[in-house]
Amino acid sequence: MGASILSDLGTEILIPVCAVIGIAFSLLQWVLVSKVKLSPGRDPGSPRNNGAGGKNDCADYLIEEEEGLNDHNVVLKCAEIQSAISEGATSFLFTEYQYVGIFMVAFAILIFVFLGSVEGFSTKSQPCTYDQSKICKPALATAAFSTISFLLGAVTSVVSGFLGMKIATYANARTTLEARKGVGKAFITAFRSGAVMGFLLAANGLLVLYIAINLFKIYYGDDWGGLFEAITGYGLGGSSMALFGRVGGGIYTKAADVGADLVGKVERNIPEDDPRNPAVIADNVGDNVGDIAGMGSDLFGSYAESSCAALVVASISSFGINHEFTPMLYPLIISSVGIIVCLITTLFATDFFEIKAVKEIEPSLKRQLIISTVLMTIGIGVVSWVALPSSFTIFNFGDQKVVKNWQLFLCVAVGLWAGLIIGFVTEYLALMVLFIFLDSSSILIDFNTSCALSCSPVQDVADSCRTGAATNVIFGLALGYKSCIIPIFAIAVSIFVSFSFAAMYGIAVAALGMLSTIATGLAIDAYGPISDNAGGIAEMAGMSHRIRERTDALDAAGNTTAAIGKGFAIGSAALVSLALFGAFVSRAAISTVDVLTPKVFIGLLVGAMLPYWFSAMTMKSVGSAALKMVEEVRRQFNTIPGLMEGTAKPDYATCVKISTDASIKEMIPPGALVMLTPLVVGIFFGVETLSGVLAGSLVSGVQIAISASNTGGAWDNAKKYIEAGASEHAKTLGPKGSDPHKAAVIGDTIGDPLKDTSGPSLNILIKLMAVESLVFAPFFATHGGLLFKIF
Amino acid sequence: MGASILSDLGTEILIPVCAVIGIAFSLLQWVLVSKVKLSPGRDPGSPRNNGAGGKNDCADYLIEEEEGLNDHNVVLKCAEIQSAISEGATSFLFTEYQYVGIFMVAFAILIFVFLGSVEGFSTKSQPCTYDQSKICKPALATAAFSTISFLLGAVTSVVSGFLGMKIATYANARTTLEARKGVGKAFITAFRSGAVMGFLLAANGLLVLYIAINLFKIYYGDDWGGLFEAITGYGLGGSSMALFGRVGGGIYTKAADVGADLVGKVERNIPEDDPRNPAVIADNVGDNVGDIAGMGSDLFGSYAESSCAALVVASISSFGINHEFTPMLYPLIISSVGIIVCLITTLFATDFFEIKAVKEIEPSLKRQLIISTVLMTIGIGVVSWVALPSSFTIFNFGDQKVVKNWQLFLCVAVGLWAGLIIGFVTEYLALMVLFIFLDSSSILIDFNTSCALSCSPVQDVADSCRTGAATNVIFGLALGYKSCIIPIFAIAVSIFVSFSFAAMYGIAVAALGMLSTIATGLAIDAYGPISDNAGGIAEMAGMSHRIRERTDALDAAGNTTAAIGKGFAIGSAALVSLALFGAFVSRAAISTVDVLTPKVFIGLLVGAMLPYWFSAMTMKSVGSAALKMVEEVRRQFNTIPGLMEGTAKPDYATCVKISTDASIKEMIPPGALVMLTPLVVGIFFGVETLSGVLAGSLVSGVQIAISASNTGGAWDNAKKYIEAGASEHAKTLGPKGSDPHKAAVIGDTIGDPLKDTSGPSLNILIKLMAVESLVFAPFFATHGGLLFKIF
Repeated sequence: MGASILSDLGTEILIPVCAVIGIAFSLLQWVLVSKVKLSPGRDPGSPRNNGAGGKNDCADYLIEEEEGLNDHNVVLKCAEIQSAISEGATSFLFTEYQYVGIFMVAFAILIFVFLGSVEGFSTKSQPCTYDQSKICKPALATAAFSTISFLLGAVTSVVSGFLGMKIATYANARTTLEARKGVGKAFITAFRSGAVMGFLLAANGLLVLYIAINLFKIYYGDDWGGLFEAITGYGLGGSSMALFGRVGGGIYTKAADVGADLVGKVERNIPEDDPRNPAVIADNVGDNVGDIAGMGSDLFGSYAESSCAALVVASISSFGINHEFTPMLYPLIISSVGIIVCLITTLFATDFFEIKAVKEIEPSLKRQLIISTVLMTIGIGVVSWVALPSSFTIFNFGDQKVVKNWQLFLCVAVGLWAGLIIGFVTEYLALMVLFIFLDSSSILIDFNTSCALSCSPVQDVADSCRTGAATNVIFGLALGYKSCIIPIFAIAVSIFVSFSFAAMYGIAVAALGMLSTIATGLAIDAYGPISDNAGGIAEMAGMSHRIRERTDALDAAGNTTAAIGKGFAIGSAALVSLALFGAFVSRAAISTVDVLTPKVFIGLLVGAMLPYWFSAMTMKSVGSAALKMVEEVRRQFNTIPGLMEGTAKPDYATCVKISTDASIKEMIPPGALVMLTPLVVGIFFGVETLSGVLAGSLVSGVQIAISASNTGGAWDNAKKYIEAGASEHAKTLGPKGSDPHKAAVIGDTIGDPLKDTSGPSLNILIKLMAVESLVFAPFFATHGGLLFKIF
Repeated sequence: MGASILSDLGTEILIPVCAVIGIAFSLLQWVLVSKVKLSPGRDPGSPRNNGAGGKNDCADYLIEEEEGLNDHNVVLKCAEIQSAISEGATSFLFTEYQYVGIFMVAFAILIFVFLGSVEGFSTKSQPCTYDQSKICKPALATAAFSTISFLLGAVTSVVSGFLGMKIATYANARTTLEARKGVGKAFITAFRSGAVMGFLLAANGLLVLYIAINLFKIYYGDDWGGLFEAITGYGLGGSSMALFGRVGGGIYTKAADVGADLVGKVERNIPEDDPRNPAVIADNVGDNVGDIAGMGSDLFGSYAESSCAALVVASISSFGINHEFTPMLYPLIISSVGIIVCLITTLFATDFFEIKAVKEIEPSLKRQLIISTVLMTIGIGVVSWVALPSSFTIFNFGDQKVVKNWQLFLCVAVGLWAGLIIGFVTEYLALMVLFIFLDSSSILIDFNTSCALSCSPVQDVADSCRTGAATNVIFGLALGYKSCIIPIFAIAVSIFVSFSFAAMYGIAVAALGMLSTIATGLAIDAYGPISDNAGGIAEMAGMSHRIRERTDALDAAGNTTAAIGKGFAIGSAALVSLALFGAFVSRAAISTVDVLTPKVFIGLLVGAMLPYWFSAMTMKSVGSAALKMVEEVRRQFNTIPGLMEGTAKPDYATCVKISTDASIKEMIPPGALVMLTPLVVGIFFGVETLSGVLAGSLVSGVQIAISASNTGGAWDNAKKYIEAGASEHAKTLGPKGSDPHKAAVIGDTIGDPLKDTSGPSLNILIKLMAVESLVFAPFFATHGGLLFKIF
């Protein structure tokens, strides 16, 4: 044992400084983005005079072409479309927040009442659980502070999602305009905007958490157990918001997308994002509320939960008991260093290298992930060395376990790298070597179809479109199932390594490791929908084909990296929920969760069913909302004269309203399922059954999440592969409108709700049930299991 | 405590007598079926003279019409087609058995070597594990007898599957011919043939097991622990065969089916089973090798495993230790009584009531299930009263537990009734009341689409075809996911009740209860493919439209009940594998399987992934085999002149060969995955991790199995609903060839491998890994966990 090198004062300074740097960097990026002017120059009457405002920029040498630069109307049109998208998104989010706000208040009251009742609302201090000789704060205080941190978490999540959406809808038209000057310019704009969101969210989450801890400490003093138990409410708040954000946003975006595609692309044969399609604005709004605000809330939730899980486990380690402040805040220091590492990483994309051609975009984004992971590995090493004592003790369900600082370093590092592996596997379904190893029949198939040995799995799926949509779907489902294999082994190895070294604390810091580069991850993730929107705006504003090609290239790279982001989100969700599960078990004072007891086993079985129930709800919601959208779009095409010819304007607002209403209404049943299950199980069946439910939903949900994301991704990419027609093989399947292409479009449409609604929402299901159980653990342990008590 | 009422001698007589009665009844049914002559009467030269031989039958009053009765050529044609199907099926099964035979021998050697090595091949007797003061037989003897019973189980399974296929291909053309006389006649023929298989399999399985126990007892004497451990090999043998039967047969049948449909129905627009389609014979062969032989092996495996699980758990109860023979054989007595109950039930369908109209078929089949369940409940009550002492002791992972006989009655009964519930839910996806309760959004959807309030979920899926294949697939997937809910709760309740009353013994007898009416269940299941084939033969023989309508009606009822059968198979698989899991844990001397240890948790996570890996393999196998079939069928249509016009004959043999080769080759990787996983995990990671893998694959596999079966079933039924056009709503979607119908056909094709290949195979995955672990448990406990021993 021994003290850490970093002093407590150093820690008190380091964390807020890093957070503030993050926020400042984020603002700087915003300023840089805002330099692209969205008004037609100083003299709108003379379109020849610096029309796009781009000439004011000093980087004139980058301008490759001047196409459309002087077209005053284009800029006006872009601004108009942008404001329509922004208004739609803002109005949806406000509506959503109203409903969710009511829920949040109700749930906050529930938390206070339930936790307060543990010791009958007594205001007297109690003996501590971990050491009966000491006196701890009353349960009522924990109830009050848990409620406060719950609300704090919810508000931070709302702010993160909302600001992300704002900057995204601020940046999309600017990206379109920059695309006129070249792909490099557009890339920088989109990427900087993504970075605004990434850094703002990471720094904001860290700062709020840090301030809350310091404020709570004034009351709690030396009762660190109580302090960090109360802090877990922060994770619950963040994650509950994320649930509604993801589900509501996911239904919104996919109802619009599927509805727009089914009528526009399939029936009317007009291109994607065509302004004649009445659902086109709703589709673009959807990208912002689903992929930006929803995903921002989701990752913020993961981040908040993994920090809380690590803190609550650490609070009953030797740090907590001996009041070693710096090692106690190790999780926060990791996140602080993560912000700095991501800052340096961002400079590689925006300043150190320049994107000059389309083919450089994707490598540049992937390089971001690799650079941040490598730098962060060093960062973790340094932090583990300076912020931890050389060895310390943690408590593992009753036993004590001595952990060395290098062991904890390995736990964080294994999480960090596992995230990278899962992300890359999720994207590189093309890693043939691995798949040949896993399934030797792949080679034979490739020989027998017209696809050569080097066929990637996605090409395989594309090839199956020859025989129609049915085989495409069969192959896509099979590929999705198969894609579970490597991520699950990666997660299993991380769990085994980190659990062996440092029990549940190891798992928690591994999750934190995976999320330590969250700023970069989010920047890349947000970049995708911004580029997608930019393309939509280009199409709607009637800009030339070349501009659209550039934004499409940006978008394609974004899709690839979005797959990586999803992999990260799933992997971290698995680790986070396991850590939360461990913390719950500790807090509920269960020593073993034995599968061989009927209480646990039925929990396991029912828990494994919950992700199916949840997916059934979300899938059907998207399906039925899309049906309504299809009917409205068809109605408009049939009843508005001149719409197909482009002489009349469609009624965008009705479509926006359909998506909004459907998603608000449809997000409630799945939300209720997730929020109520832990309460019902805990109250009626008790903590053992609840443990089973958590374990079951974790191991089952993670598989469905991975396979749903990858199945959807594979269909999407197979369609793109055929459309791009970049190889001899792809040309035999295309062009657009051919039978194989139609089959591919059907697959893509099926994949939409899988990869963007039910798949990502499952992450939240498994995390949220765990964190909710953790928060309510003292209540369940005291008053739960009514049914078994009665019989 | 106290002795049972039934004497040991009574038991020794009762069991074989019931088994022999079952076999005799089965032969009687066969004789009745064989009365339908498949040769054109005594005087083939005079077609007017009793052409179909039907006139010899005394039940002339049932003959409704004489359509085609005197057509000599039709009979010849039917006989010819039947022999082609029979030859194809026989040749496939022989090829399959050759490959599987090699595997069986190799695996038998493995069992002997691994189990023999537990005590270093010592031939000396050892102190017993459950009572160190007694002397038990050496491990080498267990190794030898396990190997023998493994081979016995495998051979019994082969015989069951093969005979089932033989009677099915014997009965199909006879059903077609009887259909000329009316639907009642045809029904009786098909149902009797199914009964031949059902009773033969149930009685055969029971008799072989009974004889094996009595023979082994000569050697083992009082060492009942060793005796019943050795008997578990019987379950392993039965189940390993079932694996290859299900996977091989499943790939065969669906490759042919999908291939035939994609070209025939979709591209060439010719009806199902049209003789011009080159894959039509392969398709009909597939029904016999997949749905008959494969399913027969599967249910035989479940039956053998649940009996073995119950026996091995009972052997270490007070029965085993006090050598109470009658209570010890309680599981076998239940099965014996089950045969008698099913016999009486069968008479209700064949003799007590008469089918006169199409609409009576389905209720009649469902009545079978209800009658058998009600009668069996009484049977179980009687058996529990006479064969069990009023109370006895079982051992529950170290603890002792006193069980009353009425408690054990409840365990069996809850299993029996849970089977019925699961079966009916699997079929009655139409139970709106339940689904409204589960998902209130259903009502709203129904209001907003053109489907009225009374819409069933399947109508909902059919309705979604309006907007194309994509929404159909989305709704179908959602429905499949949702269909997990009720069965899982039913299984959970059964597990909880039976576990609470009698620990793992309770689970084992609950599984046995579910399978106690196996003879009736199998009869109904086998009836389906026989009717399907009968329809195919009618089409191919060019019989009139009315005949085809009758066989279609038989087939439709068969599809409904096949869904029930699948529900039974899944539910029993879940219970059986849990019972086997419990027996494994006992035998491997593990006292708790704690989810909170990393060894167990990673097992749980990876175990939950295995069903996905397995499904990926089987789905892709079907997909790629179907692609080959499509290419061959297209080739024949393009190169054989006059094929479409019906003037030239297609080359059926090549299609049969493609299905045979593909299924033999493709069944090996998934088979290896299932068979090797327990060995690899046990040897390298040890029994704790293996426990996790078993629990994980059980809770995850059962969900995928249910959802895959029901998704496929929903698409199938949606297609049939549109084709039948029986309601106003259905008419708006049809007719055949309309866009919604095409969308429905795509869904149906996707569902084929889900519901008939990967779904049912998963049952075997979860059972087989458990029984294999159980057989190898002593070896793993002694030599396993190498990796953890090294590090």
